Amino acid sequence: MTASIAQQIVLAARPTGGRAQLTDFRLEDVPMPVPQEGQVLLRVDYLSLDPYMRGRMNDARSYAKPVQIGEPMTGESVATVIESKDAALPAGAHVLVTAGWVSHAVADAKNLAALPADGIPARAYLGVLGMPGFTAYSGMAAIGKPKSGETVVVGAASGPVGSLVGQLAKLVGARVVGIAGGAKKCAYVVQQLGFDAAIDHRAPDFADQLANACPSGIDVYFENIGGAVWKAVLPLLNQYGRVPVCGLMAQTSGKNDGVDDGLATTMRAILTRSLTVRGYINYEFLAEYRQAFLKDVGGYLRDGKIKHQEDVTDGLANAPQAFLDMIDGRNFGKVLVRVGDEE
Amino acid sequence: MTASIAQQIVLAARPTGGRAQLTDFRLEDVPMPVPQEGQVLLRVDYLSLDPYMRGRMNDARSYAKPVQIGEPMTGESVATVIESKDAALPAGAHVLVTAGWVSHAVADAKNLAALPADGIPARAYLGVLGMPGFTAYSGMAAIGKPKSGETVVVGAASGPVGSLVGQLAKLVGARVVGIAGGAKKCAYVVQQLGFDAAIDHRAPDFADQLANACPSGIDVYFENIGGAVWKAVLPLLNQYGRVPVCGLMAQTSGKNDGVDDGLATTMRAILTRSLTVRGYINYEFLAEYRQAFLKDVGGYLRDGKIKHQEDVTDGLANAPQAFLDMIDGRNFGKVLVRVGDEE
Repeated sequence: MTASIAQQIVLAARPTGGRAQLTDFRLEDVPMPVPQEGQVLLRVDYLSLDPYMRGRMNDARSYAKPVQIGEPMTGESVATVIESKDAALPAGAHVLVTAGWVSHAVADAKNLAALPADGIPARAYLGVLGMPGFTAYSGMAAIGKPKSGETVVVGAASGPVGSLVGQLAKLVGARVVGIAGGAKKCAYVVQQLGFDAAIDHRAPDFADQLANACPSGIDVYFENIGGAVWKAVLPLLNQYGRVPVCGLMAQTSGKNDGVDDGLATTMRAILTRSLTVRGYINYEFLAEYRQAFLKDVGGYLRDGKIKHQEDVTDGLANAPQAFLDMIDGRNFGKVLVRVGDEE
Repeated sequence: MTASIAQQIVLAARPTGGRAQLTDFRLEDVPMPVPQEGQVLLRVDYLSLDPYMRGRMNDARSYAKPVQIGEPMTGESVATVIESKDAALPAGAHVLVTAGWVSHAVADAKNLAALPADGIPARAYLGVLGMPGFTAYSGMAAIGKPKSGETVVVGAASGPVGSLVGQLAKLVGARVVGIAGGAKKCAYVVQQLGFDAAIDHRAPDFADQLANACPSGIDVYFENIGGAVWKAVLPLLNQYGRVPVCGLMAQTSGKNDGVDDGLATTMRAILTRSLTVRGYINYEFLAEYRQAFLKDVGGYLRDGKIKHQEDVTDGLANAPQAFLDMIDGRNFGKVLVRVGDEE
């Protein structure tokens, strides 16, 4: 027997002044959706919260359409089939689905695939084996291309993308320096993930600390911060340095860090040091790298060669606060919201 | 019988306030160099003047060491062997040599190779078949990768690099829009080189004209200007746009165009449109592309499929003025100084 009421969180208002706040979201009760022939009813177990969602709240040109006012926030989940109208996907199966910030959803069974019963919890497919993991893997495989002995610097190093970027670079023999916010995250990055150093971007002498941690310069900078951090990295980049641009957290939240100046310096560095600065969205590389990613990172996970951290909040109603905390860097690891019952 | 006096032009002073001037150079008489065993005495026939030389006049970090005060300006030439102490390279042979702004030079024969007697004038190996040509070819082959139906925009379109960039893009079936300074150069680019359009970067409505000339956006922007032109190009770049950064003339002369702001906008565009911005110096690609370049562009030249323009000044003493004219965009085509007798 299925409950008759489902829940969703919609975009109530677009953030003004750059900063999102709780009143930009609204929790709504909606009728439980009903699956038709060929469809399944899904109960969302875990909802993934990711920085890109902040961009979707703006009505601005980007790589995806903005969320409309009154519509559910977009997002990926792992879910359990609780009612099936398609024999190919029976009740009890676990799937990955882009259903938004919702408790339940109906989807065409033919567009879903059951997650493998490989002993890895389904929610890993939202993190280290999901979009964040693939973002890290594909950005390094296609753009960063770290080599043994090179120096790799990665922003947001304790997060789901940055932590894998750095661990993958360590596995090829690079020196890895993480940038993170606060002593706890820095300690985690060095002690748990095995990075060679970690720098707190809040430190007043951040740029000096970074330079000291990179005595041979920087060969790969995995950019997901922008702003003042970019300005500290730029003078350290070596000839033929590679910069996968995966995010700009310092800009995304509208703060911009007061660093719109510096274009001429940046372009000059790109020219004189033959730098590659390359933006990307992970889906560009799905066809080329997805199989290798699942094989490689799945193997590293089973062999205990990489670690990952999850930051779980209970209840869909608490998703907006968890999201705002993540934007402010108060999360620790991959941010998940436990929405339904655990499998 | 060889004259006993040679001439050279040395860097007399570093430019101040960004702009180079005639007093930064000095013409000097020096004793005619004398070749030793295994060496040859060269008479420079044509000296190549290139924008990168402006950078060498500064005492700044770049991809090459600066010229020292009192030393000859650096530069490439085609020269004729007028006295040989090595049987492998007899008098009369034509060679390509990096000897600086000089009338004569001595060089080790083993470091020189006679230019092919292929019916192409030796001075072409300073331009369309030389460093500028290879800069155009390798930047497009390795970074720009234009495809049929795409839109390619190239700065300094009437110059030795830009004119070949555009013609190579036309040969693969791209729509090509050139940016040049003044009506004469714009007319040449369209009427003689066959570009689809040319925009005068001095026009007050330059950005609007560029947008109108690129109704499907820009897929490849060959960057050799920077400054205000970059700002006009940026909003037009399509997803997966490629930007080989070959030069920054608007910045090189120290003018900077008042456009140091715009870094945040640039980084955001790189991220959201998955742009590739890649600086390069042609020598990075010599091993991979030089043979293909000589074969392809040599063939196009012989088949009359590409055109090139030379802007020749007579006399080494006039090299500084020709150089300053080039920096100010008053040249028309590849800038050469006729130093010695023509072969």
